[in-house]
Amino acid sequence: MSHAALTTGGRLAGRLLETLAQATADAPGITRVAYGPGERFAHGLVREEAEKLGATARVDAAGNLYLTLGGRYPGLPAIVVGSHLDSVAHGGNFDGAAGVLAGLAVMAELIEQGIQLPRDLIVLATRAEEAVWFPLSYPGSQAALGLLDPRALEAKRSDSGRALADHMLEEGFDPDAVRRGAPGIDAGRIAAFVEVHIEQGPRLVAAGAPIGIVTGIAGGFRYVDAKCLGAYAHSGAEPRFARHDSVLGFADLVAGLEAEWDALERQGHEATITFGRVQSDPTQHGGSRVLGELGFTLDVRSAEAAVLERIEARLHEIFAEVGARRGVTFETGPRFTWEPATMSPALIARLDRAATELRMRAPHVPSGAGHDAATFAGAGIPTAMLFVRNENGSHNPHEAMEIADLDQAIRLLRHFVTEFDNPLDQP
Amino acid sequence: MSHAALTTGGRLAGRLLETLAQATADAPGITRVAYGPGERFAHGLVREEAEKLGATARVDAAGNLYLTLGGRYPGLPAIVVGSHLDSVAHGGNFDGAAGVLAGLAVMAELIEQGIQLPRDLIVLATRAEEAVWFPLSYPGSQAALGLLDPRALEAKRSDSGRALADHMLEEGFDPDAVRRGAPGIDAGRIAAFVEVHIEQGPRLVAAGAPIGIVTGIAGGFRYVDAKCLGAYAHSGAEPRFARHDSVLGFADLVAGLEAEWDALERQGHEATITFGRVQSDPTQHGGSRVLGELGFTLDVRSAEAAVLERIEARLHEIFAEVGARRGVTFETGPRFTWEPATMSPALIARLDRAATELRMRAPHVPSGAGHDAATFAGAGIPTAMLFVRNENGSHNPHEAMEIADLDQAIRLLRHFVTEFDNPLDQP
Repeated sequence: MSHAALTTGGRLAGRLLETLAQATADAPGITRVAYGPGERFAHGLVREEAEKLGATARVDAAGNLYLTLGGRYPGLPAIVVGSHLDSVAHGGNFDGAAGVLAGLAVMAELIEQGIQLPRDLIVLATRAEEAVWFPLSYPGSQAALGLLDPRALEAKRSDSGRALADHMLEEGFDPDAVRRGAPGIDAGRIAAFVEVHIEQGPRLVAAGAPIGIVTGIAGGFRYVDAKCLGAYAHSGAEPRFARHDSVLGFADLVAGLEAEWDALERQGHEATITFGRVQSDPTQHGGSRVLGELGFTLDVRSAEAAVLERIEARLHEIFAEVGARRGVTFETGPRFTWEPATMSPALIARLDRAATELRMRAPHVPSGAGHDAATFAGAGIPTAMLFVRNENGSHNPHEAMEIADLDQAIRLLRHFVTEFDNPLDQP
Repeated sequence: MSHAALTTGGRLAGRLLETLAQATADAPGITRVAYGPGERFAHGLVREEAEKLGATARVDAAGNLYLTLGGRYPGLPAIVVGSHLDSVAHGGNFDGAAGVLAGLAVMAELIEQGIQLPRDLIVLATRAEEAVWFPLSYPGSQAALGLLDPRALEAKRSDSGRALADHMLEEGFDPDAVRRGAPGIDAGRIAAFVEVHIEQGPRLVAAGAPIGIVTGIAGGFRYVDAKCLGAYAHSGAEPRFARHDSVLGFADLVAGLEAEWDALERQGHEATITFGRVQSDPTQHGGSRVLGELGFTLDVRSAEAAVLERIEARLHEIFAEVGARRGVTFETGPRFTWEPATMSPALIARLDRAATELRMRAPHVPSGAGHDAATFAGAGIPTAMLFVRNENGSHNPHEAMEIADLDQAIRLLRHFVTEFDNPLDQP
C-alpha cells in the first residue's frame, strides 16, 4: 500500500510515531520511563496535536490525559479510546503509543469529514502501564477509575527506587487525590472502552490479517518457586529401581500438562502453559548425580476462568500420579493469580459487522498479555480491543508494525464510532 | 549373626575397620586423603598387621603396598586381592578399606588353618583411587602396572593445589620411577586380580543377599555442557504454534531416552541414563519467559560397549526427531568417555561354584561406578569383583555394611583361593 493510500488519520499517526521514535530514542530501541521524560514528551506531543485538532485536554490526578471531542448530546456516556505512552527500556516504538495515536487519528478523520458524533469521543493516554517500572498492574488506568489501592502509591520505581507518589508529585500531579480515590472519569460515564494495541505474538502475521478483534485478555496463575523433590544419588551406583529422579518426575509433569493442553485445544479452548525457569541446585548438581531436586516456575494463562481451574485441578492430579510412579513429590510454593478479562460480546459483534461492511479481514484473537483494557473490563465497562499485526513480539527494539496495518485499525474504529448510535446497529 | 559366628579373618577385619574409623574420623564420617595422613595411617596399619601374620611387605614407587604370603611354587603367577585405602572427604569407612581388609582376612584364615597355597597370595593396597583428589582414573593402580601417563604426575590435588608427583615425593615415594613406567608388579605375574568392595547402590539390599558377583564395570560417556536451544519469548504473548520452547524439547529428549532404556532392559541389557544438571540461564529465565535455552548434563553408563554405542546413536536420532517436532536444536558440547571393563567369565564361574559349594547366595550384579579392578581388567589380567551388601550408597558418612556380610565375602574368597589350583575346579 502506498503512503498516499493512507487515511488522513493514518498519515498523522505515522508522522507522530516517527516524532516519538526520534525524541525518545535510546539505542537500541526507545525508552519512555513511566513518569519519566519519554512518557512526559509523548503526553505533551499528543496533547498538543489533539488541541490543534480542536479537542479539549484534561489531566487527572495521576497524570492520565483525556482528549475530548464533544458530541451532540453531552449527557450520553462517552466512547473512550485509549492506551498507554510509556515503554519498557530499549523497547519498541509501537507498544502503547500506536493505540493512543489510533484514537487521535479517528478524531482527525471525524474532524476532516465534518462528523460530530452523538456522544463525546475521548482519547485517553494512560500512565505507567509497563510493569517493569512499578510492580503493579496498570496503576494509571486504575487511578483513572479511582480504583488504585492507596498502598500502590508506595511502590518503588525499579530504576529510581523512589515511590510512585513521589514520581507523580515530581511530574506535577496529585497523589493525595489518587489516594482518596478521586476518579479521572466515572465508570458510569463510559459507554465503551476500546484499546488498539500491537499484537505481541505473531498470530496475525501467521493469519495474514492486518488486524484482529480480541476475544479476551488472559488471566492466569503462576507458581514462581515450585520443586520436584526426589533423592540425590550417584549416577554410576544407584540402580534404576532405587532412583527417585527429580528430572524424570519433571519431564512427566511437562508431558502431562502438555497432554491437557492438547485436550483443551481439541475442545476449542485457548490456554498457554510455560515453564520459565528450570534449575537444579548448583551446590548439588553434577555430571554423575541423580538429581534429588529440580526447581521450576509454571505460568498458566487463559481468558477463561474455567480453563484455569481445570488446568489447576489437572496439575494436582499429575503431581499425585507422577509422585506415585516416580517416588518423587512436588512442592508448589507461593501461587500468584490474576483474573481474566472478558471483552464485551456486544462490542465484538459491532466490530465484526464493521469489518464485514469494510470488507476487512479481522479474525478473532486472544490476548495472552495484560493491557489497560483489563482495568476497564474489570470495572464492568463494555470493553473491546483491536490488535494490529506486528512481527518480532513486543518489549524489544524489533517490534515491526506497518502504518498501513494501523491504518486498517483506524478505518475500522472510525466506522465503529460513527455507527455506534445507529439504531440499525444495535445488537 | 553373632560376633562369635564370624571367621577369625572376619573378626580381624572388623577390628581393623574400627581402628581405622577412630583414627581417621572427621565428623561427619571419615577422611583419608590420597597421599595424605588418613591414607598413610591406613597403609601403616595394614602393613603392620600383615607383617604380624607373617606376610612380606613391599611398597612400589607410587606407594602401593604389596603384602605377600608366599606360595609353594614361587614361579607361578600370583593371586592378587586388592582395593584402595583413601576415601572421599567426610566419606564412609568401608569404601575401599573393606576390600583390603577382606584380603588380609583371607590371609589370616589360611595361616590359622595352616594352608600354604601353590601360588603367592598378594594383598594389594593401592593409592589414590577416589577421583575427588586428583582428576585421574585410578593413578595408583595404573602406576602399579607401570601404565600411568607421565602427564598425570602433574595433576593437582583438589585440596592442596599441589602436583601428584610432589605428594608422592613428600610421602617418601619415587615419582621419577613412576614417570619411567617402572611397574610395581608385572601384569604377566598376576594369575587373577580380585577386588572386594561395598556395593554403592542397594541392589544386594533389595535382593536380600549378603554378597554379589560383579559381571562388569560400566563404561560410559558424558556430555557435561549440552543444551537444548529454542527461542526466548513472552509466555503471555507467544502463541503455541510460534513457540520454540527448549523445556518441551528437553522433556521430549528425557522421554525418548527413557523409552530406549526400557527397550534395552526388556532385551536383557543393563544401562543407566542420568541428567545430573538441568539449568536455565539465570540472566534470561523468569516467570513469564518461554525458555530459549536449557542446559543439561547427560551421563550414560553400561558394562556393554555395544549398548553405549546404541544409546549414543539413538540420542542423535532423538535430537533430530525432537528438533523437527519442536523447532529446537541440540548442542552436545564436549564428550567424555571411559571404557567398560569386563570381568573374567572363567573367574565368575569359579566364584559361582564356590558360592554353590558354600550354600551362599551371591547373585550377579553390575558395577555402575569405576574401581581399581578396571585397571587390571583393562591390562588383560583375569579380573573379578565381589560386592558386599551396603545401605545408603557410598561417598557419604552413612555407608552401612555389616561385618557379617563382609565375612561372607571372606569365606567365599578363601574358598576361591584354596580351590584355585584344584584341577577339578578348572573350567
